[in-house]
This record gives sequence, C-alpha cells and structure tokens, in this order.
Amino acid sequence: MSLPICQNYIGGQWMPASSSATTPVFNPSTGEIIATCPVGTCVDAEAAIAAAAAAFPAWRDTPPVDRARVFFRYRHLIEQNFERITALICREHGKTAIEAKGDLHRGLENVEYACGIPTLLMGDTLENIARGVDCETMNQPLGVCVGITPFNFPAMVPLWMFPLGIACGNTFVFKPSEKVPLTAIALVELLIEAGLPKGVMNLVHGGREVVDTLLTHPTVKAISFVGSTPVAKHIHETGTRHGKRVQANGGAKNYIVIMPDADMGKTVENLATAAFGCAGERCMAGSTAITVGAAADKLLPDLITAAKAIKVGPTDRAAQPHMGAVITAAHRDRIASLVDSGESEGAKILADGRTLKVSEAPAGFYFGPTIVDDVRDHMALAREEVFGPVLNVIRMDDLDAAIETTNRSAFGNGAAIFTNSGQAAREFKHRVKAGMIGINVGVPATMAMFPFTGWDDSFFGDLHIQGKEAVQFYTRQKVVSTRWFSEGVGDVWKK
Amino acid sequence: MSLPICQNYIGGQWMPASSSATTPVFNPSTGEIIATCPVGTCVDAEAAIAAAAAAFPAWRDTPPVDRARVFFRYRHLIEQNFERITALICREHGKTAIEAKGDLHRGLENVEYACGIPTLLMGDTLENIARGVDCETMNQPLGVCVGITPFNFPAMVPLWMFPLGIACGNTFVFKPSEKVPLTAIALVELLIEAGLPKGVMNLVHGGREVVDTLLTHPTVKAISFVGSTPVAKHIHETGTRHGKRVQANGGAKNYIVIMPDADMGKTVENLATAAFGCAGERCMAGSTAITVGAAADKLLPDLITAAKAIKVGPTDRAAQPHMGAVITAAHRDRIASLVDSGESEGAKILADGRTLKVSEAPAGFYFGPTIVDDVRDHMALAREEVFGPVLNVIRMDDLDAAIETTNRSAFGNGAAIFTNSGQAAREFKHRVKAGMIGINVGVPATMAMFPFTGWDDSFFGDLHIQGKEAVQFYTRQKVVSTRWFSEGVGDVWKK
Amino acid sequence: MSLPICQNYIGGQWMPASSSATTPVFNPSTGEIIATCPVGTCVDAEAAIAAAAAAFPAWRDTPPVDRARVFFRYRHLIEQNFERITALICREHGKTAIEAKGDLHRGLENVEYACGIPTLLMGDTLENIARGVDCETMNQPLGVCVGITPFNFPAMVPLWMFPLGIACGNTFVFKPSEKVPLTAIALVELLIEAGLPKGVMNLVHGGREVVDTLLTHPTVKAISFVGSTPVAKHIHETGTRHGKRVQANGGAKNYIVIMPDADMGKTVENLATAAFGCAGERCMAGSTAITVGAAADKLLPDLITAAKAIKVGPTDRAAQPHMGAVITAAHRDRIASLVDSGESEGAKILADGRTLKVSEAPAGFYFGPTIVDDVRDHMALAREEVFGPVLNVIRMDDLDAAIETTNRSAFGNGAAIFTNSGQAAREFKHRVKAGMIGINVGVPATMAMFPFTGWDDSFFGDLHIQGKEAVQFYTRQKVVSTRWFSEGVGDVWKK
Amino acid sequence: MSLPICQNYIGGQWMPASSSATTPVFNPSTGEIIATCPVGTCVDAEAAIAAAAAAFPAWRDTPPVDRARVFFRYRHLIEQNFERITALICREHGKTAIEAKGDLHRGLENVEYACGIPTLLMGDTLENIARGVDCETMNQPLGVCVGITPFNFPAMVPLWMFPLGIACGNTFVFKPSEKVPLTAIALVELLIEAGLPKGVMNLVHGGREVVDTLLTHPTVKAISFVGSTPVAKHIHETGTRHGKRVQANGGAKNYIVIMPDADMGKTVENLATAAFGCAGERCMAGSTAITVGAAADKLLPDLITAAKAIKVGPTDRAAQPHMGAVITAAHRDRIASLVDSGESEGAKILADGRTLKVSEAPAGFYFGPTIVDDVRDHMALAREEVFGPVLNVIRMDDLDAAIETTNRSAFGNGAAIFTNSGQAAREFKHRVKAGMIGINVGVPATMAMFPFTGWDDSFFGDLHIQGKEAVQFYTRQKVVSTRWFSEGVGDVWKK
Repeated sequence: MSLPICQNYIGGQWMPASSSATTPVFNPSTGEIIATCPVGTCVDAEAAIAAAAAAFPAWRDTPPVDRARVFFRYRHLIEQNFERITALICREHGKTAIEAKGDLHRGLENVEYACGIPTLLMGDTLENIARGVDCETMNQPLGVCVGITPFNFPAMVPLWMFPLGIACGNTFVFKPSEKVPLTAIALVELLIEAGLPKGVMNLVHGGREVVDTLLTHPTVKAISFVGSTPVAKHIHETGTRHGKRVQANGGAKNYIVIMPDADMGKTVENLATAAFGCAGERCMAGSTAITVGAAADKLLPDLITAAKAIKVGPTDRAAQPHMGAVITAAHRDRIASLVDSGESEGAKILADGRTLKVSEAPAGFYFGPTIVDDVRDHMALAREEVFGPVLNVIRMDDLDAAIETTNRSAFGNGAAIFTNSGQAAREFKHRVKAGMIGINVGVPATMAMFPFTGWDDSFFGDLHIQGKEAVQFYTRQKVVSTRWFSEGVGDVWKK
Repeated sequence: MSLPICQNYIGGQWMPASSSATTPVFNPSTGEIIATCPVGTCVDAEAAIAAAAAAFPAWRDTPPVDRARVFFRYRHLIEQNFERITALICREHGKTAIEAKGDLHRGLENVEYACGIPTLLMGDTLENIARGVDCETMNQPLGVCVGITPFNFPAMVPLWMFPLGIACGNTFVFKPSEKVPLTAIALVELLIEAGLPKGVMNLVHGGREVVDTLLTHPTVKAISFVGSTPVAKHIHETGTRHGKRVQANGGAKNYIVIMPDADMGKTVENLATAAFGCAGERCMAGSTAITVGAAADKLLPDLITAAKAIKVGPTDRAAQPHMGAVITAAHRDRIASLVDSGESEGAKILADGRTLKVSEAPAGFYFGPTIVDDVRDHMALAREEVFGPVLNVIRMDDLDAAIETTNRSAFGNGAAIFTNSGQAAREFKHRVKAGMIGINVGVPATMAMFPFTGWDDSFFGDLHIQGKEAVQFYTRQKVVSTRWFSEGVGDVWKK
Repeated sequence: MSLPICQNYIGGQWMPASSSATTPVFNPSTGEIIATCPVGTCVDAEAAIAAAAAAFPAWRDTPPVDRARVFFRYRHLIEQNFERITALICREHGKTAIEAKGDLHRGLENVEYACGIPTLLMGDTLENIARGVDCETMNQPLGVCVGITPFNFPAMVPLWMFPLGIACGNTFVFKPSEKVPLTAIALVELLIEAGLPKGVMNLVHGGREVVDTLLTHPTVKAISFVGSTPVAKHIHETGTRHGKRVQANGGAKNYIVIMPDADMGKTVENLATAAFGCAGERCMAGSTAITVGAAADKLLPDLITAAKAIKVGPTDRAAQPHMGAVITAAHRDRIASLVDSGESEGAKILADGRTLKVSEAPAGFYFGPTIVDDVRDHMALAREEVFGPVLNVIRMDDLDAAIETTNRSAFGNGAAIFTNSGQAAREFKHRVKAGMIGINVGVPATMAMFPFTGWDDSFFGDLHIQGKEAVQFYTRQKVVSTRWFSEGVGDVWKK
Repeated sequence: MSLPICQNYIGGQWMPASSSATTPVFNPSTGEIIATCPVGTCVDAEAAIAAAAAAFPAWRDTPPVDRARVFFRYRHLIEQNFERITALICREHGKTAIEAKGDLHRGLENVEYACGIPTLLMGDTLENIARGVDCETMNQPLGVCVGITPFNFPAMVPLWMFPLGIACGNTFVFKPSEKVPLTAIALVELLIEAGLPKGVMNLVHGGREVVDTLLTHPTVKAISFVGSTPVAKHIHETGTRHGKRVQANGGAKNYIVIMPDADMGKTVENLATAAFGCAGERCMAGSTAITVGAAADKLLPDLITAAKAIKVGPTDRAAQPHMGAVITAAHRDRIASLVDSGESEGAKILADGRTLKVSEAPAGFYFGPTIVDDVRDHMALAREEVFGPVLNVIRMDDLDAAIETTNRSAFGNGAAIFTNSGQAAREFKHRVKAGMIGINVGVPATMAMFPFTGWDDSFFGDLHIQGKEAVQFYTRQKVVSTRWFSEGVGDVWKK
C-alpha cells in the first residue's frame, strides 16, 4: 500500500513538490512510517515566494480590521477541529494527548492575539512638534515573510509565526519540519477555510535547498526560525547578510533553583513536569536542578520516586501514558550517549531511562525519565542541550552561587526558582541572565501577549517571537513630518 | 391575541418583572404595537444588582484570557445570528436593513475589541524605582457596572458597554430603552449561549424608578449612559454624588464645513448620508452644513435633488427604502414643530419632509428629508438637537468664520470638513472644538479601538466609551511599591 | 513693625489683593506670626482667570518641546534654590529640614516628569482603518486650569499640579493654602525666572470666596484639589456641575499589616516613620497598625521605645529634632481630643504625646508621638482621619482578617504589609481595596511617574494626580478620521 | 609649535593613546591642521572596554531616576557651553555657525529625551495571566555599549547614542570620527562635569584596529554606528556574528517630489536648504528633485537663482557665509569627479560649483552649490551618495511615476513631497518606501522622541537610533511569571 505524500500549497493551490525525493514521516509511538514528505527544491520555494509577492499589495491594503476577521474565523475553526488536530500531533510527534492539547492551545492563544491587530498596529502622533509641523508614525508590513519551524511543537511554533505575520499585512511562506508535516497541512487547510485570499499563505516542504532559497531570495523580507543554536546562528547570519530581518530561536539549558524553604511537594510536581514533560523535547525544559543547601535532601527522594512512577508508552491510542516517545530512534540514541558520557565522567544516575522497554510498542522510540546527580560544568551532559527527559542535579551552598552558576550558561532562555521568600525571588529575577524567569513556575514559557524572550545563545536577532516585539518584527515604522503652507492656499479657501 | 411581554434576566434566570405595568413597543414602520415592555421597579433593579454583586468575586478572579474567550464565542454567535438580529432592529426601530446591519456591525467591532482584553489590561512596571524598590501597576475591575441605553442604536450602544465592561472583570446590569427591548433580549440570549457564568450579566427593563435605583445603590460602581444632554447631565451628577464613576453621552449638533475646492459629487453623497441616514436619529448626524464662499452654489442644487430622491418607507419587509420611519409619532411631531418654528422665524425650506405620505404604510411614523436654508444662530432649530432628517444650511465667507461658528456650539461631538486642501484640513482639525473630526468623512464616529470622544455638552465624565479610555473607565489602577529586606531572610536561604 | 503681606501674581504682575482682609501665617515651631495672607475676593479670582484665558491661545500653540524647556530651566532653578525653599517650608509649616527636603524633592520629581511632555502627549494612529481612511488622535490642552492646595506639603502638592498642567499647554490659576503661602510665592518666582510667558501662571491667595469663584466660573476647565474628604467631595460636585473636569484628593486612614515573619527591626523603623513622620500630617500616613498573631508581641515593645525616643522640637534653626510641630494650636487640640475620646472609650495609651512640653519653644504647636492600643472600629479615633502623630494598633489572628478590616475602611489611599512571604504579599496586593500598596514600604506614596491612586473616599474623580493619568486629566483627546478623494484632485497632480 | 594631541578618556582618567601614530585634524575653512588625533590600538580599546565593564554593575543598579539626573545636569551644562561647542564644530568641521547650532541643538534634544528614562523604561504587567500566576516584564540594560560616529554631525550623532545608552543603565565606549575629535572631547568633558561616575563613559580615538576590537570583543554587547552603507553593512555583519546587537546607519539618496500645485516660493527655499545645507554632507540631504509635470518650469529658474546666490566661505570667524567647506580636499575632489562623470554621460549642469574660488581662504576645501538636470538612473551620479552640495533633477509626468522612481532606490532614509493636495500627500506617505517622510518638509529627519527610521540600504539592524526603538535597542526585555503556593506558607502567616 502506498503512503500518502504531503503536498505543497502555493498561490491558492495544493500541488505536488517539484522533485520526487521524499523523507519518511514516522509515528514515534510505534516506529511505523505513516507518510512521506517531499524534499523540495528551489523551484518550489521560488514559486511560493512569487505567489506571496503577488498577493502582497492587495493584502497589505486590506484594512487591519478585515485582516483580523480572518483570524477570528480561524480561531473558531481551530476550536472546532481541536480533537482532530491534536490526534495528528500525537500520531506524528509522539507526545501525549494532554501535551498535544497544550501544544495547540498555546498556538491558539497566538491566533487570539493576532485578532487584536488593529490595536497592536497603532503608531504615535505628536501635534505641533515644531511650529506648524505635525509628526505621526505608521507601522507598515514588510512584504513576504518566511517561517521555518521545528518538530517539537508541531502546532504552537507555526502558530507563533504566521497568524501575527499575516495579520500585520504580510504574506507568508511556511516551511514546516519534515518530521511533522501533517499538523502543518491541517493548520493551513483551516486557514484556507477561514477565507484567507489566495497567495497570502503558502506552504513548502523541504530541507536545506528550500531553506537556502528562502534565506537568500531578494524578495523575502523576514525570516522567523526556531531550531538548534548552531542552525539559528547560521540562519540569522545568512538572512541578515541578504538584507532580511531575522528572528532565530536556538537551544537552551534552563536552570531551576530550589531553595530550602520551597514547598517541596509542589516543587517535585513542577520539576517533574519541567524536566520530563514532552519527553524533554522543548527549549523551555527544566533540564538542570540546582538545589541550595538543605533543599537537596528534602527534594531528591520524592523526585526520584516521581520520575520512576512516570508511565511511558504509545500516545496514538485511547489509553494515554504519562509520557510518550522521542522523535526518532537516532535522537533516542543521542540522548543515551550523552547520559553514558556523563556517567563515564563520574556523574551518578539516580533514575535511569536508558533501559526502558515498552512492551505494547516495542519498535517505538522510547527513553525513560532520567535523573543524573553530581554533574559537573565541564561535562558535555552539562553544557549541551540534551532535548530528552534527562534532569541534571547540581548542589550549591547558597543563592548567590546558584545565580552565578545559572549565569555562566551560554544560553539564556529560561530560569526558575522555587521558594517562599519574596527576597530570594526578587534577587533571582533581578540578577539572572535569562529572558524568561519563573518564580515557582517550572516552565516559564511566556503566553502569547508577551514576547518569548530568549537571551544570548538562545536567540539571534533583536525582536522576539510573540507579543509586541513580534508585531514590531513583522512591521517597519515610518515617521511622517507634515507641514502645510497657508500662503499658497489662501485662494483655495474661497475660490 | 395577547402581546409578548419582555422578561428580565437576573442571576441566570429569565423572569417576569415585579410589576405588571408596561409600555408598548411599536413597529415604527407601521405604527403597530408588537410587544410590551415592563416598567419595572426598584425590586427588579435591586435583585439584578444583588445577582451581579454575588457573581463578581469569581468573575474577577477568572483570568482575562478566559474572560476574553467568552467574547470570542459571542462574536461567532452574533455573526451566525446576524440576519435575525438585524431584522429585529428593523422591526422595532424602523431603520433600514442596511442601517441595521451597520448598527450591529459597529457593535460587533466592540465585541472584537473586548477580545483583546489581556493586552488592554496591562499595567506598568519600573524596576529599582528607588534602591531596592520595584514599582508595578495593576488595572483591577470595579465591581457591578450598569449600562443604560437609548433607542437609536439598539445593538451598537449596548455593545459599546457590556462586552468591554465584562471582559475587564466586572459584572453588569443592563437597562435598555423600553422602545427597543427585543434587540436587547436577543443580545443577552447570545451572551448566555456564549457561556458567560450566571449573574455576570443581568437585564432589567424599566423607566425612571429602575434608573434611579441603579444611580443611587451603593453596590453599583459605574454607570455608562447614552441619551439626551439634560438626562446625561443628571445621570452624571446623581451617579457621581453617590460615589460612582460615570460616563454619560449627551446630544449633539454636528457641523459639516464644505470648502469651495471640495469634490462636490462625493460631498453631496456623504452629506446626504450624514444628514438623513438613520432618519437623522444619531448623535453623530451631520445636522448643519456650513458652506464657505462659492461652495453653496456648487453644492446646494445637487444636494436638494439628492434629498428629494430619497425613498422613504417601511423597513420591515423585503423591499427596502432608502430611509425608514422615526421612532414614534410624538417624535415625528416634535421634528415638524422645530422645522415650523424655523420657518416662522425666517428660515427657508429647500426640501420639505413634513408633508410626506407613505401609502404602503399610512400609520407609520414618517418624516421626509428636509433642508433648511438661512438658518440663524438664535433659532431653536439651530440650537437644539432635532434628531430627525433635517439639515440646516449656514453660509460663511471663509474657513475662519466657519470654524468660529462651529466652536460656538455648546456641544462637541463631531465636526467635518470637505476639502482637497491639506492646509484647510489641518487648520480645521487643529482648531475645532469637537472630539471627533472628519476630513472628507461625514460621520466621523470612531471605530471600536478609538474612544468616542464627545466634548463639552455632548459628554459628561472624564473617560469615554470605546477604546483605551473605556478600558480605563471599567478598571481602576493600583500601584504597588515592593521592597524585600535581605537581613531577615539570610537564614531562609540556607535553612 | 508691620508684617509682610503676601501678594497675588496675575497676568505677569505681582499685585496686592483686592481686599485688605488677611489671615495670619504662623511659624508653628514658635507660635509667632510671620506674615499675613490676604483673604481675597472674586475680583482677584476673576482677574487671574481672565489673565490665564488671555495667555492660553499662544501657550497652547507653543510646541511641547519648547514648553518642556521652561521646566528644564525650572528644575535647575529649584535645585539651585533648594536650601532657601526648604528653609521656608520649615518656617511656615514646622516640619523638619529632612522632611522639607523630601517635600521639595518629591515635587522636583514632578517637574522632571513634566520635562518629558513631548513623549507623554503622544496620540495614536491607525492607517487604513477602513479602505482609504486613516485615523489619528491628538491630546489637546483644556484651557484654564486651577490648583487648590493644602498646607501639609507646601512644595510637593503644588508641584504635583502646575508643572504638568502647564507643560500640557494649559494656563493656570494657583490658590495655595493660606497657612503656607510663602513657599507658594517662592515656587512662582522661580517659574517666572525660568521664562514662562506672562499670564500662563497666576497666583491668587484667598479662602472660600476665591475658591467658589474658581469652581463656578465658566472659563475654568479643570480643578485639581487636595484636602479633606468632605471638602474634596464638595469641590468635585460643584466643579463637575459647572462643567469642569475635577480631580479631588481627600483624606485617608491607611492600614499597615505586620505579619509575624516580618523583619521586626526594619518594620519598627518604617512604621515609626510612617506614623510619626511629618507629625502624621500626610494623607499617606500609616495611622493604623494591624498586627497579625504573634507579630504584636514581637513588635510593640520596640515600637514604643522608638516612639518615646523621638525628639520633638522647633525646626526653624540649625539643630534639628526628629519631629516638628503640627500646623496650628487648634489642630493640636483636635488631635488631643480624638485621643482623649479613644481613651475614654476604652483604648489603651501605650505612648502619650498629649503631655509633651518643648522647653526651647514653649509656644509652639507640639504634640508628641502617640501609640494607642485596643482601638475598636466604632471609635471616632478609628474612623476619622487624625492627621497627627497617632498610631492606632489593632490585633488580628490571620491575614484574611487583616485584609477584611483594611477593606472595611471608607477610604482607599494606601495600605502596606510587612512580611518576608511572597505569598502573603501577593494576597495582600491582589485583594486590598486601596490604590497604593506597599510591600515592606510603609508610605507607598507613588513617585511622579506613577499616578497617586487614591480610591473610594480618598479621591473624587476618574483621573488621578501624577503620571499618565494626570497627563490625561490635563488634556482631552481628539480623534480624526481622514479620507481624500482621488477623483477631484486628478487634475491637481498634473496642472 | 607643536599641535595639540587628543587624549583618550578611560576609567575616569584622561590619558594619551598607547601608540604615537596620529592623523591630522583640519580646519576645512582654511585647510590648516589644528590638532592631531591618535590612531589608537587594541590596547586602548581593550582598556576602555574593561573600564566600562567594571563600572557596569554599580551603574546598572543606580535607580533610573538618579541616572536621569546626570542628564538633567548635562543638559544645563551644554546650554551654558553652547557657543563654545558650536565654535569648535565650525572650526573642525567647516559648517556654518547656524548649522553648528542646529547640530548641537538636535543633539541636545536627545539629552532631553534621555531625561525621561524612568517613564521610557517601563515594562508591562498582567495580573492573573493564569489562575494565581502574575506576569511582568522588565527592560534591563545590556552591559558595555559602543558608539562609532562619523564626521558630519560632530555633536548630534554622538548625542544620539551615549545619553540614552547610559541613561538606560549601560556603560559606554565612544569612538568618534578622527576628523572631528575636538567636539567629542568637549562633550565628554561636560558629561564628567555633570557627575557621571568614573568608567561609565569612555572615549577612545582610533581607526580600523580600534573599531575591529570593539566589534569583536566578547564583553561588548551593542554597537551603534553611523557612516557609509558599505561600512555600516560590515559593522552589522561583524558585530552580530560576534553576538552583539547592532544598529548601523548607512548612506542615502533622498528624493524630493515637487507637484505642480506646490507653493513654489516655499519649495525653492526648502529645497535649497535640503540640497545645499551642511554642504550636502548629511544622510538626510535632499539630493534628487523629482519635478512632476509643470512643476519643473515653475521651479527651476528660481531654484537656480537661489543656488547661485548662496555665499560660500570660511565659517571660523565672525562674518558667516551661507555655506561652508566640505570636510577634506579629497572629498571635494570626489564630489567634483562624480559631477564630471554625470556631465560626460550627458547630464546638464544648471549651476556649477566646481569652479568656485573663495578668495579669503584659498586653501579651504570648497565646492559650490550645483544643480544637474537630465540625470538618468544608470549614472553613478544618480546611484551613489555624493555627500556634497549637488542636486540632481529628474522630470516625471505624474505622481505615480515619481513614487515608482523613488521606490527603485536601494536606499530608504528620507523622501519628501511638496504639494497643497491632501490626496497627493496621503498617496505619497502611504506608498513610498522610505522610513522618514516629509510633507512640505524638505529634511524630514525625525526629532529625538521619534526613531530615525532608515529603511533598506540606509540601515542595518532592527531597532533604530532615537525614540522608543532606541530605548529597546539599549535594553533587553525580561519576562517574569510568578506564582506563590499558599499551602507552604500557611504556618508562616501565624507563626
């Protein structure tokens, strides 16, 4: 039986890619191939860019209120198709149904935010900035924008990008991860149903060639990207060198500091979710716990128990586990080898996910919750983003040391503290070098109305995804100074 | 056959009013009574207030994102029921189907605006405002808010008020005009369907007694009102004296200046709509044309022709006229007597709507498009709000004189200029004393994301309906200064 | 020897008042009369209003950048004259040199804020709000504004008002307290030196007749007032009934909750300052301490010791006490009688300031630090604003009870909590019904860039003094909708 | 006699550069060398960076209100030293006294803007973003920032950068143009006098080596640059590749469209200033006039007369010419060769500045006002930034063609239109691809409170110099999500 082949959507038409080369789309829960995704070429990318460019003038001149209305309808359609899309996410990504709902829900909030575009687009005025001169600003769309998205949040990350980009008056080319193209297609189908004019949204599958075309084509004005740090850095450098605005989210290594006065029951619960939720495949995963003083002894026994109680299994069926598979067999093996390397360098495995067997789905890509103690700064396990359900533990004597350790990281996405002390929380949020801070919040990923503020090696660019910064990213400001001469029009007034 | 009697909606229940006294609801197109509206007593008002107060704590603590979601659903339901509601508006108000659609559409935009409440509610922060002290503000809801609405926009004016008031976290008592209660009921029914918790929205029919209770009851925190100037002033004085925040829109007398360089074809078209649209029953009606210099001769012949070509008739059937009836027979007679008085004081009738007969609906409340020339400042016709399809004409020699005349008005809702000159437009918008200015826009009523900024006798209060000012009206700002002492918690950090 | 008589400043001229009636200006430290202040009549007030009205058109059309520059110079002049003005404050008000510096410093921050007026005045734009229609808003000045100020902050409260009011483009009439006119005169003198055009600022001394004229004159557009609650309510009612915008700050009864986990050393220090600073004559005084659980026993002994250690005496000389006199002998006696009444109703005096003798200034108006325990809700001492150095103590069992007690107050200026718990602080700031909240900050009066947000009976009006709300208060928003017709100008383009 | 050698200012000390190599500083009016500027090495740059890094923690923790106060004093000092500094500008740059005043004045406005930093730094809050979770944002400084400035505005461009950068809490390394170091030194001296702590501001002279060190040193967090397009692009690429935030302003080619209905008298006056002011050495110079239809014939005769009437001469003495010298002899020759090439390619010289002789200063670097007609798109004169007093003229048939020509430019700084038509102005501002638009304003350079919004090849980066974008550039946003667990603190509340 032949597998379904994903199609591109260009200029209002679904169509096959220009090349017959494909990559497999797996169901990570079972290891089966469920579809194939075309590799794509510059021909596809250029066609999509051309279609987007052609649609721009009319879409840009559509009043923001009318553009918003497409997203009001889109929001309603996503709500109506919620179960269907989250099932797709479970199937091609492997995360649990609850996690898939969170994925789509977080994305939906971005659609809701885009509905507020008439207010968000407002510029400034100042009457009489100089005698008889008035000044005003406008925020105008850029033109053709591009979104390149990773596998780990098949719905949320694309919805971070195109709803706001399009609501701002831009047209769009969307290049989803070849590992999770089915959710992407479903999202585009609903956008069509919401009444978006042809050419405003375009979908192209592919890999390096497609990406390179998008990064260098003179017609493209802006690139939004989420992926690993080396690729994010490359995307940013290449895109800006070619005259584009770029926002590129990279990897992370997020620290969670646990103070001795924290509510340990709640902390265990939150920490387990932060470290093992979505099988650790998120850039806001809490991958390192820093225990301060007596916190280690109060925390670790219950945490280990909690980790071991997490049931792992297939998520493509009615009975749901606590945690699903990771994205590919190769990725599972990379996680294991990082844990191996830590162990061989002296770290101590408190909970070991490497040996996990899932009998009901033996070919799935599973890796169990893992806790590693005595991790040292120099270990690869400490420095590299693992992107799996692995929690490192570091013990410190006081808050100052914990903050200093956190600040030594090259990354700067998130950091959290668990404490009951107002003072400890204030010190932490004031001093920590990371863009998203949680006070008793283990995964302080920001909601749609606030920017997703990665710092340092977690983000390349100036204007982040989400919130007001994203509106700025997708527009450019024009400042107009106006004066009228009265002499010349005297006669007009009475003629 | 018995007429339907409108019900109150209190604490999540539809129920009859406490008194059996009623007033008739007419179909102005035919003069028929189509329903009756209860007069209501303080018992009804107090019950509604109590229900709203009881619902407040839980609604206030519902996250803004979740409150917004009710209005996303509400928006969808209004869109689905658009035809049904606009037919109700035609039937109980008499305006045309196109005007009814405009009425509901403008209201819908306010629902859309309310969906952006998470962003609109944001407060400010400043870290380290003094050494170690951080400052933040919050915008918190007030409690029980009240909306009292007039007959002329049965959908728009209520939708100016309760969606934003409720989205801000308040609970609400809505007292619609007894002349158009059916639209009000339909709007409330859909809000219930959208999933608003019980008690958050309450509807009470009635007259003076109900209003007085709402104005003076200590539990009520804010009053939004739209009506005539004397009543608006009374509402503002009474409400504020009883410790409430009040925004009260009154009447208007809006001037439209026509410069000789204006595009006369477009000006005629816009002026006719401004003066005769909705049968002149709007507080943004363009009720006085000031022609400058040669503009009078260029404009008036075509304007008279346009006025006479307007077909007036019943709006409760498939074939639609250009203009419908006015709200009651008494109101029609008041309009006629104002025109009579102008005529007897020397004004010249260029088009006369007093004698209009509508054969297919002889008992309807009709008054035809009327143009009155040579109107003088001292005439009642010049000073009072007519609220009917009557356009006064004043001739001036230059723009300065036109602006001065405009600025002598006690009212300050809208003012417009028709011109091609950037300089004339700038002078006009800079100098005219009115809150809403149109440049080649005859009815410069603001859209939902901007405040409806009546000035002077057109508005009583500080914070207007619509836009950011309305968000401020429905919330109060709390400023928090925070400092933590490090000495006292040193031990906490390591304990 | 004759006493100096204060002069009015009207239309750029210093001049005597129209009437020879005067009231004495005391030095509260010694009880001596140091000057006399004219009582003033409607003639003076009307002249000031006329001068302000005449200066308005030119000042309104002065670009905001240039208006700001007057305040940049004013700021510099205040800094240069700092010692001289604070000495005046000490002399006519009686507060200590440190407090006088704080008074002027807080006022200076408002001058600094006014320097930012070009940014603060910005309005909004939205291009293409409908096809071909652009929308913009402007914030325009009102006209003649009035400031009526109390005795307790001779520099700060006037500087809350006129710098921002004038920077917004308004002209001003300033009516200072007849008890502290010398500071007012000095502030006006420096404003003249800063180069403000004649007539923009006017100073009128007087009492009820002057105030009534200002409240009712049709030319006045806005009133800023600070005083007691009954007068504030009267000012608001009268002013708004006469078509003016009014912001009227009234009295307060500010609660400070002390949790058992608070840093007691810091709390005692802050509480003593909050209760006894400025001899308790401030609307943000911490006049009631609510101790929770064990906090009372931890706190009170040291607090009593601290109160008793406060040295009270004259502030008009080099050696400075910790606390100065109250404003008049009559006010001292009123404070004493409120404490007497509390005592007679069963309250327990822990520190008694009634018997204080100050040997080096026996005729000064002194009242010592007083702590009253076992105060009950029904006592006048508990309900009324004492405006003296009297701290009531109420004991509660838990935070919920403390918050409920705080929320029963009719006033709503400030409230503070002392704790180390993030959770207690969050509950408090979220739930307390007061506009200014302190977390470990005893006097959470907001700084100039944030509004001074009294709630309930502490404020009458919608838009507060200070910060962005004050900018809104001193301006009104105009919304302009602009469209240009292309047909009519085709020929213009090539002619 | 030995020439003065400019010194560096590092860590609060004036000191010689590490190398003895220097470049001459000319007086362009006379051709004389008036000082020498050290070439500088990485040693100097590294010392400055180290000093700035050391000063950062304390300065960052200084409250914004206190940081602003340094700039209030700085503003006053600049005002007091206005004549002295503008004389320096005339002397080392050659522009006229009036232009030098404009240069410093525009810079001063940026100092004034920086005084508003407490308001400008405010972040956002949202209470209860999810149940019990509050969200807030802070805008925190970056660390060590760098400003690299060109010769053409010796005061304004540096003042664009360091006042706001430092007010935001950063520390700074300033590398001025080696052609105009004396103004830079004077600006730094006054900043020291204003009381800035040591190490917060550092000044380093030098060329490529110093710049390369600043661009690549890991401690530097942000680079502000103004210069030519190729260098700006290089600065942006190098800086961002090394992990820095960069804003780099490049060159421009600004078009001014003259409609036939424009006020030609005013247009000539404005166009002459736009083209020849500052000898054309500004990135907002109006270097190309596009006449539409009959405008050419109405405009050119008077424009040529005006150009020829411009008196050119030395600006370092009391008698002032209308226009001064260009910066160097080499630059003068480059301008001449571009005009030569245009002439040889067929352009027509209407006014010829190549042959200008200035008898009172024969060795000065003079080039007279030049107007070139019949310029074609392909000519170097049309494409390259001339940066001299040369105005190209292009004739078009209608506004559409004029806009299309404007939009073909690779640059996007400014564009202006002269017209009396509201419609022509609206079309122009809506459609033109340039960041700063003038309607009857020939040099629409934005004032300090609005960003200087170059587009396309005129700017590399996302966040512009000046206004709110610059505040964003000099800070990074941190988003904090806070929750407190009530269970764990129950005992705290009563303990």
